[in-house]
Amino acid sequence: MKNEKKKHSALHEKDGISPPEIISLNAVEQIQKFRKKQLSSRELIDGILSGNIADLSRAITLVESTNANHLAKANEIINACLPYANESLRIGITGVPGVGKSTFIEAFGKYLTSLGKKVAVLAVDPSSTISHGSILGDKTRMEELVKDTNAYIRPSASGETLGGVARKTRETITLCEAAGFDTILIETIGVGQSETAVHSMVDFFLLLKISGAGDELQGIKRGIMEMADAIIINKADGDNIKKANLAKAEFNRALHLFPAKKSGWTPITSTCSAITHDGIPEVWKTIEQFLEFTKRNKYFFKKRKEQNQYWLLETINEQLKSNFYNHPEIIKLLESSKKAVSTDEISPFAAAQELLNVYQNYKKIS
Amino acid sequence: MKNEKKKHSALHEKDGISPPEIISLNAVEQIQKFRKKQLSSRELIDGILSGNIADLSRAITLVESTNANHLAKANEIINACLPYANESLRIGITGVPGVGKSTFIEAFGKYLTSLGKKVAVLAVDPSSTISHGSILGDKTRMEELVKDTNAYIRPSASGETLGGVARKTRETITLCEAAGFDTILIETIGVGQSETAVHSMVDFFLLLKISGAGDELQGIKRGIMEMADAIIINKADGDNIKKANLAKAEFNRALHLFPAKKSGWTPITSTCSAITHDGIPEVWKTIEQFLEFTKRNKYFFKKRKEQNQYWLLETINEQLKSNFYNHPEIIKLLESSKKAVSTDEISPFAAAQELLNVYQNYKKIS
Repeated sequence: MKNEKKKHSALHEKDGISPPEIISLNAVEQIQKFRKKQLSSRELIDGILSGNIADLSRAITLVESTNANHLAKANEIINACLPYANESLRIGITGVPGVGKSTFIEAFGKYLTSLGKKVAVLAVDPSSTISHGSILGDKTRMEELVKDTNAYIRPSASGETLGGVARKTRETITLCEAAGFDTILIETIGVGQSETAVHSMVDFFLLLKISGAGDELQGIKRGIMEMADAIIINKADGDNIKKANLAKAEFNRALHLFPAKKSGWTPITSTCSAITHDGIPEVWKTIEQFLEFTKRNKYFFKKRKEQNQYWLLETINEQLKSNFYNHPEIIKLLESSKKAVSTDEISPFAAAQELLNVYQNYKKIS
Repeated sequence: MKNEKKKHSALHEKDGISPPEIISLNAVEQIQKFRKKQLSSRELIDGILSGNIADLSRAITLVESTNANHLAKANEIINACLPYANESLRIGITGVPGVGKSTFIEAFGKYLTSLGKKVAVLAVDPSSTISHGSILGDKTRMEELVKDTNAYIRPSASGETLGGVARKTRETITLCEAAGFDTILIETIGVGQSETAVHSMVDFFLLLKISGAGDELQGIKRGIMEMADAIIINKADGDNIKKANLAKAEFNRALHLFPAKKSGWTPITSTCSAITHDGIPEVWKTIEQFLEFTKRNKYFFKKRKEQNQYWLLETINEQLKSNFYNHPEIIKLLESSKKAVSTDEISPFAAAQELLNVYQNYKKIS
């Protein structure tokens, strides 16, 4: 009786009965070990602060969860990590599919760890919910970096809205920084609105391009070129070198049509090859120059403060919308409102007012 | 007694007493006429539909009001006008101060009325609240157009948020269309976010530039160049013609770096002079070609439907934010939250959650 009370796990056999051979003792041990690892917030915080990667991953999973209890725990952990965060350099890397983002990050990440840096690679990719991870999902494309003990790779959180995905990534940055990562690379796919979100969480924004591709491949959404602190022409190797240099000159010319940046920094255009590693050290050198420049003129610190304010308001605005559009009564009515508006039966403004009135009334009685 | 009861206006003297000479009978008549003109919604609607400009102006004033009764009346009028609206062509015109927007609109507007068109000129300028109308405020810069009976010029609504100003302009378009205006020009200042708002209410987006200006004058915010359906180099007259042609070629080259437009339309670059009127008819010809092209491939109609959906959601989102940020309790707490976030005392996400909880609790008991 006494023994039974102590070992109440269903995985444990009663004394005196030997386990059947089909139960692997090793599996039992694994499962028990996992169960034991449902750690408290305090344990996870201590784990993160001592650089424990498994605990970091567990905390990120809480951040990404949609379970309210997990989120409360995640908020507790993030706030405890906050005093140890904010010391890293955050670099955004964007480019349309085909420019070689993964191979570039592999080569660049390896170069950074060779300098003694601890590198975390994250991603913001709202499409990953549908495509099941179109970027960073396949870690095999970064096989060197994935084996590097000074690198940590985490695919994009999934979620229905860009705002949600971006917020989770922003919170993950804090956790990675508290775990001792001093260089955070944030990958995003250069075809949507994700760049603006990433731009609002990084210090340096790098646009990856290639030369000699068709227009559809070069196609970069509005404003991305203007956000870039550097445009790097990748795949500048073999027969491509000449074309890459031409592309570099052309982008340089185009950049001059854009207004001066708030940072005072003049964007740099350069070429590199993730295969031969030519130009990779120069990318880092550019970033170091940018850092020195923007820390001297204080823009670096000003931007970080502004980014924090941005995330405060952005989180509020996202939540207000989420509460509204997920309200059962609004879900019921929105489609017919949209239809009436698109056929000009009602003005968009009057339809909006109708829905807001419904919401207001339900809020009062709920 | 009988007479006194009938003529109860303070502007009317009692019978038997002749009015003193200092009271102008004409002024009395004017004021009485004005008082009589506090028209019902029905009267205003009839006035607008018969093309009465005074009634159109009165209805727009209701749209721009912050008084709840006025807004209810405005909504009633807009919905009644809706079946008679949507038949115009809406053209957005942007450019930084100094490119000659007013003189261009004067020359272009006069050309359009000479073709028999009825032209309404509106503006979206959120800065006008502070600067008291930096664009279109000074109608004297359009003295020919202002005298033209086939043109109607209305300065930007004022308001604290771009969303609010833009919504009012969008509603004003409906009223102008119902009053018979078939070409709506919407001016905006090319230095902010207003272009995105204007882009969401026009069919054709025209970017005005000049050649040979300093970088600060050419400075155009992110994405505006990519929104443009045409880039027109203004002030191509006298010594400027050669430089204007060079600028045209340069912008043409830069446009090729941008992705193809959803409309399938290839943006056009051309030069014009608002002084000599050279190139003005060509601007209209370009717009006609655009119309033919996008009506044939149905993009024109698709975009209008999308714009309506956009304004439905945009109005809701604006109102949700406005309700939150204008809540007395939030006004009281927001500043200290912002401060705590900017000094890293609390994460932006946790601070947002705190404010949302406060708001939620107040909503329930209000």
